[in-house]
Amino acid sequence: MKRSGLLLFVLAIAACSPPDSSAPSSSPGTAVNADPLPSWNAGPSRDAIVDFVQRTTTPGSPDFIPVAERIATFDNDGCLWSEQPAYFQLAFAIDRSKMLAAHSPELAENPLLKALASGDPAALETVTEHDVIELVAATHSGMTLEEFQDVVANWFAVARHPRFNVPYSQLVYQPMLELLDYLRAHEFKTFIVSGGGVDFLRVFAEQAYGIPPEQVVGTMGDTKFEIRDGNPVLIKQPGINFVDDKEGKPVGIARFIGRRPVFAFGNSDGDLQMLQYTAGGDGARFMGYVHHDDAEREWAYDRDSHIGRLDKGLDEATERGWTVVSMKDEWKKIYPGEGLP
Amino acid sequence: MKRSGLLLFVLAIAACSPPDSSAPSSSPGTAVNADPLPSWNAGPSRDAIVDFVQRTTTPGSPDFIPVAERIATFDNDGCLWSEQPAYFQLAFAIDRSKMLAAHSPELAENPLLKALASGDPAALETVTEHDVIELVAATHSGMTLEEFQDVVANWFAVARHPRFNVPYSQLVYQPMLELLDYLRAHEFKTFIVSGGGVDFLRVFAEQAYGIPPEQVVGTMGDTKFEIRDGNPVLIKQPGINFVDDKEGKPVGIARFIGRRPVFAFGNSDGDLQMLQYTAGGDGARFMGYVHHDDAEREWAYDRDSHIGRLDKGLDEATERGWTVVSMKDEWKKIYPGEGLP
Repeated sequence: MKRSGLLLFVLAIAACSPPDSSAPSSSPGTAVNADPLPSWNAGPSRDAIVDFVQRTTTPGSPDFIPVAERIATFDNDGCLWSEQPAYFQLAFAIDRSKMLAAHSPELAENPLLKALASGDPAALETVTEHDVIELVAATHSGMTLEEFQDVVANWFAVARHPRFNVPYSQLVYQPMLELLDYLRAHEFKTFIVSGGGVDFLRVFAEQAYGIPPEQVVGTMGDTKFEIRDGNPVLIKQPGINFVDDKEGKPVGIARFIGRRPVFAFGNSDGDLQMLQYTAGGDGARFMGYVHHDDAEREWAYDRDSHIGRLDKGLDEATERGWTVVSMKDEWKKIYPGEGLP
Repeated sequence: MKRSGLLLFVLAIAACSPPDSSAPSSSPGTAVNADPLPSWNAGPSRDAIVDFVQRTTTPGSPDFIPVAERIATFDNDGCLWSEQPAYFQLAFAIDRSKMLAAHSPELAENPLLKALASGDPAALETVTEHDVIELVAATHSGMTLEEFQDVVANWFAVARHPRFNVPYSQLVYQPMLELLDYLRAHEFKTFIVSGGGVDFLRVFAEQAYGIPPEQVVGTMGDTKFEIRDGNPVLIKQPGINFVDDKEGKPVGIARFIGRRPVFAFGNSDGDLQMLQYTAGGDGARFMGYVHHDDAEREWAYDRDSHIGRLDKGLDEATERGWTVVSMKDEWKKIYPGEGLP
């Protein structure tokens, strides 16, 4: 039986119970301040960011980049928001499939769902990767794009993260929100380039990050155009059309953006090719990694993690002098909400 | 032997010789004028455009559309520039393949190239669609994305249109340039959604239309990420990954833009699904067709044309009250250049 990273995420999320304490839910807010990056401590990452933006946007500077070429790309999971104990989209898929199973005898027989329902760790051990993929496919297809996005929006409204007991959308990184704003204030165009599903991402990216749907690149399935009861709609199909991860990230950038980024941020080996591609262009470039080294306020993981593994990328970043952000040392605050670290 | 539309285009372009007269080449320019649409005659199309923009961008109007949702999509061939006697991209492919054939014995054996070289109409009759596809594939793959785009840029610099004897990039429609500017002045985001190749389109769309690469959706092949001699590059692969035509247009819109347009312009049945999809949303919508009815200044063709056929679309536009622009009656001028109609 093949045990994949995807399956391990499921085991991780299934093993994680919500805390008893009910932390107060708070809404995100960004401080208006003369300092554009108030949640960043003085340090090498902050210096490198400010230096790059000043060099590339000051007219007459030898490193000046014309506005049209100021393309900045960001990974999402683990870079703009948390990704533990499992990718948030997988938490969505599991919640969704539980609901669907009540109306679908076939889906109710899915071994993963049965194992989750039993609460028996031994049962989870028998689940295959195929079971997981079937479950995700069943929860992400067979409806119109707009119906799917309504389902996602509803999930965001009710689901709570097991550790922090707040909506998942509150677990975005305050320092990265400030960085996005700072770049846009200097006329960089900000994009998400994520291994996550594009139709899922587009539901919250605009509100959470100020990144509109047309600037979100992600993994995608097929859709089919139909006239249904006189209404033209797009129906989501099962199966994956494009995987926007690893080598897929520069391919997705070329396909959707058509221009090599000058600024790219990630947090894992899955982002390495995007950073390499960014670094390979002419002129001034910025490559950055968020390093998860804060077990107390967030999570600490890198070389041996089954989620967001950062191993080869960490070596290459060190060797080439890319920016590696220590969350522990360089971020004053992790999340925007007042009750959160 | 299967005779396709694509093959017919080749025959058309092969049969068309450049004129003897060498019309002076002139550079495009847009008049600065209080009238935002100076090349549009007063008439139903101009009225419909201005009315729509005013209704949807005036705060407090019942038809007001928030800025983020002001997505306007345009077909390219036959909508923003001419497409006769054959799609300009096919003219590029033929020119390119002639040059490549000099260095490739295999390509030199391609029946289409041999037929074109012979100048014998009977030889052209034996060419198959497969020969045409092979030729296009050979001219659009096996190099890096940046190399391909350099080749396209060089072609635009030297190639001349057979009828007007000017660079192809001068055969953009002046009234549509004004319309794009007018929409952008009212904070619409303008996109190309074309059956043409996206990597070809992106070479000229920014300069010709003010539409940046990341707002161009088109037909695309696969690319592969590689580190070549230490440089990270994307290599164009043979074969088609996505056809952005007919049902593919709304699919491409959902995939790349992620939002249903509120304004869409086309000129053929290949744009009908994009217009239907646009019409299917809530609130105010604008659907328009450019109707090629000006044989003197441009070309006249619709229901029976093998290029840009407008048949079902014309019926549906008439039935549903969509805008149908008569180039002959409603456009004062076709092209920007002074020596051109």
